[in-house]
Amino acid sequence: MDQIEIFAPASVANVSCGFDVLGFCLEPIGDIMRVTKTESPGVTIGSITGQELPTDPLKNVASVAVLSLLKTFKSSYGFRIDIDKKIKPGSGIGSSAASAAGAVFAVNHLLGAPYSRKELIQFAMAGEVLASGAKHADNLAPVLLGGFTLVRSNKSLDVIKLPSPPDLVATIIHPKIELKTIHSRAILKQTVPLEKAVEQWGNLGAFVSALYTNDYELLSRSMKDKIIEPFRAMLIPKFEEVKAAAINTGALGSGISGSGPSIYALSKGMKTAIEVGNAMKTQFDDLDIEYEVHVSKINEEGIKIINSL
Amino acid sequence: MDQIEIFAPASVANVSCGFDVLGFCLEPIGDIMRVTKTESPGVTIGSITGQELPTDPLKNVASVAVLSLLKTFKSSYGFRIDIDKKIKPGSGIGSSAASAAGAVFAVNHLLGAPYSRKELIQFAMAGEVLASGAKHADNLAPVLLGGFTLVRSNKSLDVIKLPSPPDLVATIIHPKIELKTIHSRAILKQTVPLEKAVEQWGNLGAFVSALYTNDYELLSRSMKDKIIEPFRAMLIPKFEEVKAAAINTGALGSGISGSGPSIYALSKGMKTAIEVGNAMKTQFDDLDIEYEVHVSKINEEGIKIINSL
Repeated sequence: MDQIEIFAPASVANVSCGFDVLGFCLEPIGDIMRVTKTESPGVTIGSITGQELPTDPLKNVASVAVLSLLKTFKSSYGFRIDIDKKIKPGSGIGSSAASAAGAVFAVNHLLGAPYSRKELIQFAMAGEVLASGAKHADNLAPVLLGGFTLVRSNKSLDVIKLPSPPDLVATIIHPKIELKTIHSRAILKQTVPLEKAVEQWGNLGAFVSALYTNDYELLSRSMKDKIIEPFRAMLIPKFEEVKAAAINTGALGSGISGSGPSIYALSKGMKTAIEVGNAMKTQFDDLDIEYEVHVSKINEEGIKIINSL
Repeated sequence: MDQIEIFAPASVANVSCGFDVLGFCLEPIGDIMRVTKTESPGVTIGSITGQELPTDPLKNVASVAVLSLLKTFKSSYGFRIDIDKKIKPGSGIGSSAASAAGAVFAVNHLLGAPYSRKELIQFAMAGEVLASGAKHADNLAPVLLGGFTLVRSNKSLDVIKLPSPPDLVATIIHPKIELKTIHSRAILKQTVPLEKAVEQWGNLGAFVSALYTNDYELLSRSMKDKIIEPFRAMLIPKFEEVKAAAINTGALGSGISGSGPSIYALSKGMKTAIEVGNAMKTQFDDLDIEYEVHVSKINEEGIKIINSL
């Protein structure tokens, strides 16, 4: 095999009660990446369409992730990466994770798949660190493994795939303002009240239980975040109004996607999820902010191969 | 029915990563309580054997819990409570929870069971507040519901029963020094580093997942507590040595039971759990501290009826 084309999906991390540990994978939006073997070793960035991104292999998250893989797994040939970038950087739906995970997935395949999807997280991490300055796998894990994922430890990269209730549908609204993860991190307090931390882990435990038991009511009750959201909400215009509109329209819960500015909601059933999207939209209609809305089932598969030759 | 005799089991709360939310129910140790209808309304404490406890109904956790129930559910007759108290107060295995939950369970039964086991938690809580000054349900929930339980919210008493892996066996060592919950709470810091809180909820999410999937390895990796244990360990002689002995003998993990001084371990299989108990013991043998060791399967049933007339 000399060339592979893959679809690297967007994802939602920091799912309410699961800051830095809980994420899920989206279906309709993602990048198309084509990776081609080259005679000379190393990694080059070919064409980039859709967004403006660095073509210097040491500055592009896709190539940086691949270079990390090639440090461990030596290859006599090299790789050219062409990217059709559909996920806007800084949108809060895992733009850098899609690039980094997609690139290592594709290269791994061309190398004869020496690594499992889970093992690829460690290499893709180099891309995340370049993008945000922090080592976190809560977008990488759902992109590579699909579905909901829990990162037990960001240090040892102990990652678990969780089940998804069958009727769960996500709605994402992306107001087109850019928030760098690195700035959204800076706004957070480095200590939290013990009482609030206890509430948060009670909610996360309940959320995980609800995923196993398809308990939509419990899922709804546990979608709370009193630690991160109150701070980051300040960076997102009309966050509270958009969230309230989603919940009043029947969403199980709503919160900040990743580090924002995208806002996600989870609903039971496609019909409700679409109505929730319409209700969220109306909140932005009187502002001069462009937005995009995505309605998506939980993508159980993660990255997928479109073509290979 | 005029009289009921029940077994109210001990329990382990604050299970490592699940401070204030995660607990499980023990099998071999518990109180025997006999509750008898009386003509005159109200609650009296009859005989108390095994331990010295207040007989004033306003100072005994069992009667205080029953009084809380009778505030909501009026009864024309009253109740006498006789207690054979096997669980030593201040031992860290839910002594007050057994008394409070046992008493309301028995009275509820004599009243024709107007409340579910889950609903009884709210009344038993009055006993816990009397005993420790704090409103926490992480011992009450496993005593009433059996098995592992998660308290999503101590405020709204949203409690979930979790499944138990079939081969899981607990070992408890109880060094006979008394630690009041109220003092063990005072030693805790009221704020925690965000980074440690994230680790803790990552571990709790993984622990819950492991219970659903019978993943003993994951259970083991997630039995960590870097927030509460480092402080409370200072109140327990040789805690670190006992914990290390348990883990070196094959326990999946070990930590403080409740607010101590008891130390628990979880193992896969009865044989290992017994060996773990022996290893824990040897740590106390060169100190002049008495101890008791209990080895217990997870008690899936919780409180049970022994007799009724």
